[in-house]
Amino acid sequence: MEDRTRNIRLTLAYDGTAYHGFQRQAPQHGATVQGTLEDTWRRMFGEEIRMNMAGRTDAGVHAAGQVINFWSSAPIPLEKIPKAFNSYLPRDIRILRSREEGEKFNARRSARWKRYDYRIDHHEIADVFQRLYAWHEPVRLDRERMRRAAGFLEGKHDFYTFAAAGGVSRTFTRTLYRCRVGLEEELIRITCVGDGFLYNMVRIIAGTLLAVGKGKLKPEDMPEILSSRDRSRAGQTAPPQGLTLTYVHYGEEEPETVFPELFRESSPL
Amino acid sequence: MEDRTRNIRLTLAYDGTAYHGFQRQAPQHGATVQGTLEDTWRRMFGEEIRMNMAGRTDAGVHAAGQVINFWSSAPIPLEKIPKAFNSYLPRDIRILRSREEGEKFNARRSARWKRYDYRIDHHEIADVFQRLYAWHEPVRLDRERMRRAAGFLEGKHDFYTFAAAGGVSRTFTRTLYRCRVGLEEELIRITCVGDGFLYNMVRIIAGTLLAVGKGKLKPEDMPEILSSRDRSRAGQTAPPQGLTLTYVHYGEEEPETVFPELFRESSPL
Repeated sequence: MEDRTRNIRLTLAYDGTAYHGFQRQAPQHGATVQGTLEDTWRRMFGEEIRMNMAGRTDAGVHAAGQVINFWSSAPIPLEKIPKAFNSYLPRDIRILRSREEGEKFNARRSARWKRYDYRIDHHEIADVFQRLYAWHEPVRLDRERMRRAAGFLEGKHDFYTFAAAGGVSRTFTRTLYRCRVGLEEELIRITCVGDGFLYNMVRIIAGTLLAVGKGKLKPEDMPEILSSRDRSRAGQTAPPQGLTLTYVHYGEEEPETVFPELFRESSPL
Repeated sequence: MEDRTRNIRLTLAYDGTAYHGFQRQAPQHGATVQGTLEDTWRRMFGEEIRMNMAGRTDAGVHAAGQVINFWSSAPIPLEKIPKAFNSYLPRDIRILRSREEGEKFNARRSARWKRYDYRIDHHEIADVFQRLYAWHEPVRLDRERMRRAAGFLEGKHDFYTFAAAGGVSRTFTRTLYRCRVGLEEELIRITCVGDGFLYNMVRIIAGTLLAVGKGKLKPEDMPEILSSRDRSRAGQTAPPQGLTLTYVHYGEEEPETVFPELFRESSPL
């Protein structure tokens, strides 16, 4: 059993349905993932911790690969943390992996790039088993148009048009390595891989690509919508339940090497 | 608009998590799918209906293709029923299809065969997005052994050993056309297709195949376990959330013609 102070990194998944987002809020706003994690750790070890998270997720947004770090001197072997923590956590939050990091590691600032996936259920009648994990929009969507529009968003751009008010970023230039429209079983899946994301950026991209798929916007409009820096030119902000923070990368590897299937030109459509 | 009395058949899907089973119970036992459907119909048309269901499902059990029928003189075109009904129903119940049947049709008695699927999440850490739709059993399972055991259960047998107390059946001989162990993405899926199922039969089959996969029972034990007519010889009753009533068939077609992939010898394992 160790008891020196360590910088602990955890990878976790959660179903965001029951939470008012990841970030801790005043109790009257209801349970948050961070509050649940920090309070549970205190119950387990009597230790107050403060977590850094790779990506803030809003109420109803899910995570398959969120990453957090915190300093702790809890006397538990690193490899035993996931099982022990999971035995105290509610079943809609699961710790997947643990590791120790150097003192400079910060889950948010050290992240090199992230992957988000947004799911749309476009069938006339919603799939009851996906209702909490996809946006039900029962409309005919032209996926080829959506795919062309997504291509215009790839690369290094000023994404001010795709940022909701209320974000903390002061700079708006981000690099979207990949913005891909594909299929996941019966659902349409929009995958965004980038070096950083503005507040609600993926949900606004999803709402904009949906408007393209419906024919309300043209793929060729994207460059001008980007340069307009006018939020009203983009589509609506898609609802939270369709969004999942899938993966956060910290090493040197490029997205192509981690997710080669996303970069193959053979379209999944 | 028609207003003659019709025998209406509906196909529906539901997430059973929030319900105390399909069958209507005394209100103090909580909401049921049947109660929700009948009460919603009364609110829509001021008409009291009594439904027959193809297969009773217990608390927490799901359906992707449940079938019901009821007599109604509600003045609504048949094809408009799914959309109208869905607009009043909670989002965890969706009507998929409607059709009119002859007066002899009864969703339960007219059913020729049914398909159930049971899902097991055998990974060490449960998938948070499957926790309500699969049984989490973090154990190493020998799927080849499970598959051999399942093969012994196929055919016409007395399934008394695999029937829980509390069932209404007085006869115990059923034909299991197919009992297959396969993979569905990351989950193990046990698929049962048969002409009838005893109370908790699929959940007891799932618990028994799990015991075989763990090495607690041998595939070759199945014939003797069947003939023993001793419930204690079979495995535990697997929990409800892993079970889905997938499909009910009423026509002449054999299961092989409706689900050919289940009968191909190429194993999905």
